[in-house]
Amino acid sequence: MAALEQGQIKARRSFPTQSLVELKVGLDQVLQEASWAKPQAIGVAAAGPVDMRSGQLLNPPNLPPGMRTASVGAELQATFGCPVYVANDATTAAIGELEYGHKAQDFVYITWSTGIGGGIVCGGRVVWGATGQAGEIGHMVIRPRGPRCGCGKRGCLEALAGGAGLAKAARRRFGQEVSARELVTLAQKGNPQALELVETACQAMGQAVALLWELLEPELFVFGGGFTGSWDLLAPRVLEAARPLARGSLRLAVTPLGDDVGLLGASALWKHISPDWGALQTGRVRTPG
Amino acid sequence: MAALEQGQIKARRSFPTQSLVELKVGLDQVLQEASWAKPQAIGVAAAGPVDMRSGQLLNPPNLPPGMRTASVGAELQATFGCPVYVANDATTAAIGELEYGHKAQDFVYITWSTGIGGGIVCGGRVVWGATGQAGEIGHMVIRPRGPRCGCGKRGCLEALAGGAGLAKAARRRFGQEVSARELVTLAQKGNPQALELVETACQAMGQAVALLWELLEPELFVFGGGFTGSWDLLAPRVLEAARPLARGSLRLAVTPLGDDVGLLGASALWKHISPDWGALQTGRVRTPG
Repeated sequence: MAALEQGQIKARRSFPTQSLVELKVGLDQVLQEASWAKPQAIGVAAAGPVDMRSGQLLNPPNLPPGMRTASVGAELQATFGCPVYVANDATTAAIGELEYGHKAQDFVYITWSTGIGGGIVCGGRVVWGATGQAGEIGHMVIRPRGPRCGCGKRGCLEALAGGAGLAKAARRRFGQEVSARELVTLAQKGNPQALELVETACQAMGQAVALLWELLEPELFVFGGGFTGSWDLLAPRVLEAARPLARGSLRLAVTPLGDDVGLLGASALWKHISPDWGALQTGRVRTPG
Repeated sequence: MAALEQGQIKARRSFPTQSLVELKVGLDQVLQEASWAKPQAIGVAAAGPVDMRSGQLLNPPNLPPGMRTASVGAELQATFGCPVYVANDATTAAIGELEYGHKAQDFVYITWSTGIGGGIVCGGRVVWGATGQAGEIGHMVIRPRGPRCGCGKRGCLEALAGGAGLAKAARRRFGQEVSARELVTLAQKGNPQALELVETACQAMGQAVALLWELLEPELFVFGGGFTGSWDLLAPRVLEAARPLARGSLRLAVTPLGDDVGLLGASALWKHISPDWGALQTGRVRTPG
């Protein structure tokens, strides 16, 4: 978490948030360090889907037990007395990239990490979908008979190319636990089995990128997340897989904002929440500052 | 072509346009029939991609020889002295559906016909893409090793589920020419081979619909084009294929506007052309009326 003023980080703290009380204490400390009596607004990037009409988290079971309230936004608002905006973390990262990164007007942001998330920006506007669930690139089914995904479906991009899916495939291939990070390191060293698994993942990502180009014609695909640490290995393979499947030119890039892309996006959420959303995203009519 | 006033068709003509001269003569006749001295604006739905920055047709070889100028917009503007807006026909149909059909704010329009086209509306706005090429649902690659598409790629949705692709598959299966229409009729009569081909097409369409839901979370998928004539056969099969591949509820519908969806969209194009587009969509700064 951080206190931000026009994209500048004034104070920050990083810790695994186990409960709402801890979250509030952390926020108080950040406020104190920034010498702010009160924030003008709070933006929350939630690691899961959010119903944007209400600001409610839709999948609280994925959160630590102490955080399993669907209404983090309402609770923070009651405590801090300022507008609170809650959105999915990948969409929030896309907003960070839009405001402070490459600033393309038509792009797709892809978090490539243990899971795969996404945020879509078209004509300078976030694509939210009917209730805020749009951008779930990781759950596009690429191979209907492919491996089982954490969401219950088969052959989602996340199951094919996400870190958890890759680790599963590696366990099957090597007969022992191999993390996605270790697998990528092995591939970089030229291990042919590891390279094959990485290439299969890149093919799925390439097919997704090509699909997205045909649908949205983005200027740019911006990647964030742990896999961008192995960009030289991955990017050429993704491009090679994608090119024959799309009719236009594809540009891939890594966000220049690193891990701060989400924080920066959260600080700019207030600008991008649709004015149509309902009751609990209550700050929406007041703009900070 | 038609003369429209606020969604009401005042006069119309329908003929295969072989040349620009014929097009202009037809427009003159429609103007006369509507008793208009001059149109306030002209909207053109082009059967192919359009570079929205310039209004130029990108694939004039697909047009009849006499129409193979890329600058239909500029030529009509010079002749009729009014703003001319040119856009892809499926995107134009989506605008018709937005203005005069179900009027959903988040939907995907799919033309299911000999080919497959699409238009995407998010938050009440058309998704154009960086240069106006977005919405090419028919060219999403669904099966990378699938049949060859007219665009040169393999396994595009259009090759798998479009009328031309189905007719090709039918020719292979039956050893003789069978049109897509005949194939669908056979399937309706319970011919098992025809039914199998139709089901394969519906599976591809279902996978596409599910993908689109994960990406865009539309309230609604609206279909137009010849295949909607066999909706009772197709819709349940598309839904059945799509449901296990998407995590949300899917609604499919046929446009209530029939074949007029494109005409109605063309008449409303002026409202939806992005103000960022460039030189040749020159009418853009003036709004008619």
